[in-house]
Amino acid sequence: MNIGIMGYGNLGRGIECAIRQNPDMELTAVFTRRDPATVKILTEGVAVYSADDFEAHADEVDVLVMCGGSATDLPQQTPVFAKLCNVIDSFDTHANIPQHFDNVDAAARESGHVALISAGWDPGMFSLNRLYANCILPEGSDYTFWGKGVSQGHSDAVRRIAGVKNAKQYTIPVPEALESVRAGENPQLTTRQKHTRECFVVAEEGADLAQIEHDIVTMPNYFSDYDTTVHFISEDDFARDHAGIPHGGFVIRSGATGWNKENKHVVEYSLKLDSNPEFTASVILAFARAINRLHNEGQTGCKTVFDIAPAYLSPLSGEELRAHLL
Amino acid sequence: MNIGIMGYGNLGRGIECAIRQNPDMELTAVFTRRDPATVKILTEGVAVYSADDFEAHADEVDVLVMCGGSATDLPQQTPVFAKLCNVIDSFDTHANIPQHFDNVDAAARESGHVALISAGWDPGMFSLNRLYANCILPEGSDYTFWGKGVSQGHSDAVRRIAGVKNAKQYTIPVPEALESVRAGENPQLTTRQKHTRECFVVAEEGADLAQIEHDIVTMPNYFSDYDTTVHFISEDDFARDHAGIPHGGFVIRSGATGWNKENKHVVEYSLKLDSNPEFTASVILAFARAINRLHNEGQTGCKTVFDIAPAYLSPLSGEELRAHLL
Repeated sequence: MNIGIMGYGNLGRGIECAIRQNPDMELTAVFTRRDPATVKILTEGVAVYSADDFEAHADEVDVLVMCGGSATDLPQQTPVFAKLCNVIDSFDTHANIPQHFDNVDAAARESGHVALISAGWDPGMFSLNRLYANCILPEGSDYTFWGKGVSQGHSDAVRRIAGVKNAKQYTIPVPEALESVRAGENPQLTTRQKHTRECFVVAEEGADLAQIEHDIVTMPNYFSDYDTTVHFISEDDFARDHAGIPHGGFVIRSGATGWNKENKHVVEYSLKLDSNPEFTASVILAFARAINRLHNEGQTGCKTVFDIAPAYLSPLSGEELRAHLL
Repeated sequence: MNIGIMGYGNLGRGIECAIRQNPDMELTAVFTRRDPATVKILTEGVAVYSADDFEAHADEVDVLVMCGGSATDLPQQTPVFAKLCNVIDSFDTHANIPQHFDNVDAAARESGHVALISAGWDPGMFSLNRLYANCILPEGSDYTFWGKGVSQGHSDAVRRIAGVKNAKQYTIPVPEALESVRAGENPQLTTRQKHTRECFVVAEEGADLAQIEHDIVTMPNYFSDYDTTVHFISEDDFARDHAGIPHGGFVIRSGATGWNKENKHVVEYSLKLDSNPEFTASVILAFARAINRLHNEGQTGCKTVFDIAPAYLSPLSGEELRAHLL
């Protein structure tokens, strides 16, 4: 399988690394909206082209991985490139998924390609676990906890505050809430009861730290509904302790079965990730394998992780899977 | 969907209960190898027929759930009934899955039915999680822990010892092993390091307790490779504290990504089940929905959980799933 990468940020680099772990895949080229001469990639001997020149290379690519952002890049780009190639993205604005699906589906059907949107871990693996657990336990409650991990959106919001030089925000599940859910107590949890937020901030010289802290903890939507802790640290400590992009979380369904619903069951899926973009990239490539197969079978249109039989994700045959993994 | 139940033990009763939680399903009839007049089921107004009379009722059933045992019942029964109806079983002898698959596949193809084998939690949901995690993290290690829960096979083995009136055996993961795996330490674990075994035994009057304990802990295959604890208790305590059939376990994959495999990731799926047979039944019914759909689409042959696109398990439409669960 020949993989193209559209956009070379953290996710694009993650795809580039993950391709080396999948012997049936090869990196064809990286496409960028920047000047290609300024983009240095890790893989020897692979070209970087302008995104504008993709059409000339579309035949060389089996699946194009869209590595732009969900806010403005993917809604515009994924339908456009679905007209030229099989594409996959990690669109993660949950509320806009139906609209994005329709746009990509129309483009992919018209051109005879297969697309898959919203691959990653949430949406993606967390969605799959919500679906499986809901189908198995029709009567129950769903809980999703995120963290401990870095929220890019919240980190960006802190960095926009006057006097802030650099910042990272961690989302942390409240341990008591997690334990109550795991114990099958079906708690009703407010936003504040589910997660806390912790910010590590490098302030500009002479900045008003009390004002920065006040601006963070009272920020509507981002922080005001949470218990937030702010730590001011040096640039050196920031570089040493907060360089990574870890994340993770928990999807739990707690339900009951039995003639009188007398038996409780707890299904839990959790992720502990050193690198959010690299894990997302690894999920994307597994689903890229699946859509390449669907394309070879003559299918067209937009899919999601819900539409993919798990066997299609694996390089192994059905026989091998039944013998070794079932 | 009209569901038939073949065999009315713990699993058959679990299916009967779970049907009430799935509004798109109805129990058509229970089939038994016993005298039907002696089998009293929970559902009012539903008939119990002899297994020998199934053919006369095959047209009334969309999916027949095979509720026999894996040792002798299912290898014989599932291929036979796959000739008459769509069937699903929870065949769990891992080593014999390929042979069973081939037998059922031939029968189902010949007669134009869809079958699904080995639905449940292991094989079943644990298999799915092994597959997903292996496809996402091609370089890593897999771990499966079972328990804390009742092993029926081990309980049966203890009950066969002279002087034992009743017994229940619990399989328990070793907490230190679980923690090491979760920490991404990739330990090499022996059988003894992964699980301990705990037996609760009601002895016959005057039985030689030391001999019973010795017979248990030295029993080859079942106990000799484990640290086993034996507790002798009264019949009353047994009835009060050990009436249930709880089980569960953990599937963990620990892997690395990055240009130099510098980032670790841990994917964990766990189940905590009050009733092993009722949870197994709930998994089976979700997959029964899927195979009924595949049959309506004109597919034939034997499937496993690996072959089923997750959306097929749900009564919701693709649009609803994308809007609410993705």
